[in-house]
Amino acid sequence: MEKLRFGVVGVGNMGSSHVIYLSEGKVTNAVITAVCDIKQDRLDWAKGINPDLECFLDYKEMLSSGKVDAILIATPHYLHPVIGTEALEAGVHVLSEKPLGVYTKQVEPFIAKAKETGLGFGLMLNQRTEPYYQKIREMVQGGELGELKRCVWIITNWYRTQDYYDGGGWRATYSGEGGGVLINQCPHNLDLWQWIFGMPKRIRAFASFGKYHDIEVEDDVTAYAEYENGATSVFITTTGECPGTNRLEISGSKGKLVYEGGKLMFTKLAVDEREFCFTAQDGFGTIESTTEEVVVEGYGKGHRQITQNFTDHIVNGTPLLAPGEDGIKSLAISNAMILSQWTNDWVEIPNDGEKYWELLQEKIKTSKPKKVVKEKVSDLSSTYNSK
Amino acid sequence: MEKLRFGVVGVGNMGSSHVIYLSEGKVTNAVITAVCDIKQDRLDWAKGINPDLECFLDYKEMLSSGKVDAILIATPHYLHPVIGTEALEAGVHVLSEKPLGVYTKQVEPFIAKAKETGLGFGLMLNQRTEPYYQKIREMVQGGELGELKRCVWIITNWYRTQDYYDGGGWRATYSGEGGGVLINQCPHNLDLWQWIFGMPKRIRAFASFGKYHDIEVEDDVTAYAEYENGATSVFITTTGECPGTNRLEISGSKGKLVYEGGKLMFTKLAVDEREFCFTAQDGFGTIESTTEEVVVEGYGKGHRQITQNFTDHIVNGTPLLAPGEDGIKSLAISNAMILSQWTNDWVEIPNDGEKYWELLQEKIKTSKPKKVVKEKVSDLSSTYNSK
Repeated sequence: MEKLRFGVVGVGNMGSSHVIYLSEGKVTNAVITAVCDIKQDRLDWAKGINPDLECFLDYKEMLSSGKVDAILIATPHYLHPVIGTEALEAGVHVLSEKPLGVYTKQVEPFIAKAKETGLGFGLMLNQRTEPYYQKIREMVQGGELGELKRCVWIITNWYRTQDYYDGGGWRATYSGEGGGVLINQCPHNLDLWQWIFGMPKRIRAFASFGKYHDIEVEDDVTAYAEYENGATSVFITTTGECPGTNRLEISGSKGKLVYEGGKLMFTKLAVDEREFCFTAQDGFGTIESTTEEVVVEGYGKGHRQITQNFTDHIVNGTPLLAPGEDGIKSLAISNAMILSQWTNDWVEIPNDGEKYWELLQEKIKTSKPKKVVKEKVSDLSSTYNSK
Repeated sequence: MEKLRFGVVGVGNMGSSHVIYLSEGKVTNAVITAVCDIKQDRLDWAKGINPDLECFLDYKEMLSSGKVDAILIATPHYLHPVIGTEALEAGVHVLSEKPLGVYTKQVEPFIAKAKETGLGFGLMLNQRTEPYYQKIREMVQGGELGELKRCVWIITNWYRTQDYYDGGGWRATYSGEGGGVLINQCPHNLDLWQWIFGMPKRIRAFASFGKYHDIEVEDDVTAYAEYENGATSVFITTTGECPGTNRLEISGSKGKLVYEGGKLMFTKLAVDEREFCFTAQDGFGTIESTTEEVVVEGYGKGHRQITQNFTDHIVNGTPLLAPGEDGIKSLAISNAMILSQWTNDWVEIPNDGEKYWELLQEKIKTSKPKKVVKEKVSDLSSTYNSK
């Protein structure tokens, strides 16, 4: 293979950005050859950016055109597994925007198909490219914090105005998008959360629907999670707070990490707390510790880096930083959070996904079309919110 | 009245500290004249500190001795309302250590008695003397944050070793203390939480019992609360994390306060977010804001200041900073948190307290006496944890 030939499916907010950097040749060993959108004006826009592009109004034609080796899917969420599965069946590699789908039941056959075909299968979890999150993961998974006790992530800096929700007919509806802040903004954070701290065994969450915006889906969520080893976690998010907070605290028996404002602080205990607790002769004793900033050089290159890694994977066999099958993890978590709110109960993980799917169908049935919709494409270059 | 004559009931960890500063004459218009404890060696200790003290093994004798105008109760928690009510009936003013009691049903008649007698009735909520918390309250209650949205208090710096729990037979048992971190360490924080942010209307909490220590009561709690206006809150505490965190974040439609490490930061929005949300023409817009440190001069004088204020109240009619009746608020919250865990369900506030009381009686019945107990009195002067 000379260069991996990409087709971008869906030229909206995210897709447009992919078209641009791929057209600029920013991904080594990759070239963009085609775009697909159901709107002619988006294809015209893409053609303006890159006159060499083959344009398709139907993704099926793109898949069978022989013009693409891989597709990058940037359509509304429900379509990710639909188009992705068809691409795999057509022998085309798949890099999907997050989320992998809207519900776990939907992505299971997608993942199975990818496994069966052995084709490239990646997910646009661009925040995994951030060196700070990589470092935190390395420290946590590497045991520097000892036995994990607690994780508290306040990730409320996904502020969106009503204008954002009015900017697309599919957005923030059960029928079009399938959810709100958890399915749109938080797949990144939910993925990092489990990537760093592991998968919870059960979740109890509290979500508010249209609390801060005129939408039918969730825009405010507080979740509590429990893990196999007894650790607990709190995850708080919203699109209704400005200025929001992004503060990740992880504590373990050997110390504590706090990542906030782009700064990572590590407090390291001289003795493991679990040992100290039962040997100290002072009820009010504290453990000697040192606190220092962990400086991590460089910045992640975000989406582009994921596309590069996916290309390297196919061209050179480089391991994927964000394998497609990992997408079911954050999805299982976000589905569990919403299901917990809907059923006013705990949700075990893993979960067969049936109940969530059933309730989602009910919501879709009563989903109201939006009154005011101004279709528009935004420049997202400064909104990816990695810090 | 020349000077208010105090008797201290219970000369353990806290009582000893009260004996010392009162004996040193650190409270204007107050004098300590008597102490009471069921252990002779504690009375001997007090006599060593202050030879003028009258010593009692029975508080009833102290109350009828005519030697005291007021008592400061520093016994195990269950006895606060018992001794307090008898004192009021004997015409003696009452300043009680926190908590006001162990369950709301127990403190209601105590509060009613205080109201009926019109005697001085105060609670040792010493953290209300901290200027920073006073300032935060003033800003929140004064509307500087606009409509309240969220409060997240991570207050996990109440670290205690097993030695602490082994240091008193009553401690951390259902029969002796009636609870763990919520009833012992957190009355301060739960009080400040409601004092600053208001009373929640319902709570869903998750508590672990003996998670980090060999005790039968809770030493790790995560609680989620909802308020009348739709605001939500998370409160996280434990005695099992070292180093812990004390970070209070409050956000509203006009800005955000963060208090951590003794530093108070205020981010003030140029426009109310609720207005901006529906008028902005940019979906990804953020509101102009300024962030600055709010510097508050001085330090609270803690316990001593509460005793001074209580004295001033009786001698000069100064309003109480921590009226006894306020004690039912934090108690209602802590009872609700534990009840939520026990019933695996929401708990409404206010709540009649019956169910909590019933379940507590069951726990008391099966409460196990501690195996290893070393009775000892600790020097607490550096452990009040106000920052």
